[in-house]
Amino acid sequence: MRIGIYGYGNLGRGVECAVMAADDATLVGIFTRRDPKTVTSPFGTAVYHADMLEGMRGEIDVLILCGGSATDLPKMTPEMAEKFSVVDSFDTHKEIPNHLARVDASAKAGGNLALISTGWDPGLFSVARAYATAVLPDGCDYTFWGPGISQGHSDAIRRVEGVKDARQYTIPREEALSAVAGGECPTLSTSDKHRRVCYIVAKEGADLTKIEREVKEMPNYFADYETEVNFVTEEQLRREHGGMPHGGSVIRNGRTGKDGENRHTVNFSLSLGSNPEFTGSVLVAYARAVYRMKACGTVGCITPLDVPPVMLSPLSRDEMIKRML
Amino acid sequence: MRIGIYGYGNLGRGVECAVMAADDATLVGIFTRRDPKTVTSPFGTAVYHADMLEGMRGEIDVLILCGGSATDLPKMTPEMAEKFSVVDSFDTHKEIPNHLARVDASAKAGGNLALISTGWDPGLFSVARAYATAVLPDGCDYTFWGPGISQGHSDAIRRVEGVKDARQYTIPREEALSAVAGGECPTLSTSDKHRRVCYIVAKEGADLTKIEREVKEMPNYFADYETEVNFVTEEQLRREHGGMPHGGSVIRNGRTGKDGENRHTVNFSLSLGSNPEFTGSVLVAYARAVYRMKACGTVGCITPLDVPPVMLSPLSRDEMIKRML
Repeated sequence: MRIGIYGYGNLGRGVECAVMAADDATLVGIFTRRDPKTVTSPFGTAVYHADMLEGMRGEIDVLILCGGSATDLPKMTPEMAEKFSVVDSFDTHKEIPNHLARVDASAKAGGNLALISTGWDPGLFSVARAYATAVLPDGCDYTFWGPGISQGHSDAIRRVEGVKDARQYTIPREEALSAVAGGECPTLSTSDKHRRVCYIVAKEGADLTKIEREVKEMPNYFADYETEVNFVTEEQLRREHGGMPHGGSVIRNGRTGKDGENRHTVNFSLSLGSNPEFTGSVLVAYARAVYRMKACGTVGCITPLDVPPVMLSPLSRDEMIKRML
Repeated sequence: MRIGIYGYGNLGRGVECAVMAADDATLVGIFTRRDPKTVTSPFGTAVYHADMLEGMRGEIDVLILCGGSATDLPKMTPEMAEKFSVVDSFDTHKEIPNHLARVDASAKAGGNLALISTGWDPGLFSVARAYATAVLPDGCDYTFWGPGISQGHSDAIRRVEGVKDARQYTIPREEALSAVAGGECPTLSTSDKHRRVCYIVAKEGADLTKIEREVKEMPNYFADYETEVNFVTEEQLRREHGGMPHGGSVIRNGRTGKDGENRHTVNFSLSLGSNPEFTGSVLVAYARAVYRMKACGTVGCITPLDVPPVMLSPLSRDEMIKRML
């Protein structure tokens, strides 16, 4: 399969690594809205201006969209899905049904297949929730994120006026995690389970109070959470918060038996050295599924919940049955 | 969907609990090769002789086959797949491709859909291996079982001449588990990772030495393992080994980045209060998928690797996208 990457920030670089590691994929090029001369790839991949995409439709099987969820993808995915089969990592949970409807319409208009909202959450965690809930209908599940840097949230802070750079750590609240690990089913909102800690480099002369207020009041991203804002220097940010680790767990506690007498726990956990590289790896696996399902005639917009596991691997079905089943 | 259960041992009882817990399923009956009068259901489900199945083809959407993998399912599944859409839990890993070929032929002959080898391993663990391997191609994965009772292995011991009853514990080898949890990729065979401990009640006058030898030399099940055989009284077995807990983990350690510099761990773990009830719950979720995929025209034999997560839940796709994605 011939892959294109549109957008070349951290996620785009992670996708590039994953395409290079996939024996069945070739990378046609990186597409950017910046001046291509200012962009270099560690693998020497060709870099084109995004305007070139239109003319390269016949050369790309799946275009992986590596923009941010806050402002890029809501426009980019519907627009591109009319011209290409695409994969994105749209992660504003509450907006997913609307995004899906828009992308579905344009993918169908173009006769393409689009897969949205993959990565690890949404993505592998969504899939873990679906399996655990289907198998244990009488139960409760909990998603914990972190400790780790959230790219979507860091990105959202960077879009606030006066912000030069930022990193946001999502941190599970200890008391919530221990209650769930003990097999209990407490009622916990997302904000009961996590707190958010932000390290922000402000532009010279920026109004710090205004930045802090805007971050803390940002809907979907921060408004519902205990949020801590710290202003740091550029040097501090690089030195102390330069990595991009992440992780988390989906835990479902359930009961079975005539009187619910037997308890079970399903736990899907990730520990990630590099969030963008892992997310990029997930996007490439789902690009493979899009390539295959498109070849079988599927068009429109799908999600990770619609993809059989067998579609994700470069191995044949027979090999998968032998090795994995 | 209208479900039938064929075979009413521990697994059949587990499936019955799961059907009762599913809002979208009704249980038509339990089918047994024993005298139906000797079988009672805690839920008051109707019990029929297996000979009645043929006449009830129009009343059952999916027949869940609850026989053992050693001798029942290799015959039962191909036979039944010609008449019904079926689900089984065939778990002799090395024999799965052959079983699949036989079931596929008879399901196609009957215009039915069969799903084999589901439960937790094979089943959810297979699916976990498929996702983790697709996402982290440069890595290694490990499956640990237990500590817990293996029904398939206990069943296999019970079939040895002179054995009255038995329980087999699968136990992870500590040194192997700690090496993998540390992120390393050691070369480990299944028997390097586990040992097997058997508690056996012999029939009066049975040759204990012969039983021990036959168990330890049994191909697929015990021959490759460090196996400990203990003879106990019926009373001891009931008192000390009466529960059916199980569990285990699929762990994959992988690397990404230009020089493989970032490490990741995917860990899918189960802790099960009752292995047959959890397995039964998985079978019912896959029966739902069979019911739906059959309605869409799919026939032949499939596995958990072929089923999109969205098919497993009683929720609609829109609800799943809203709640799980």
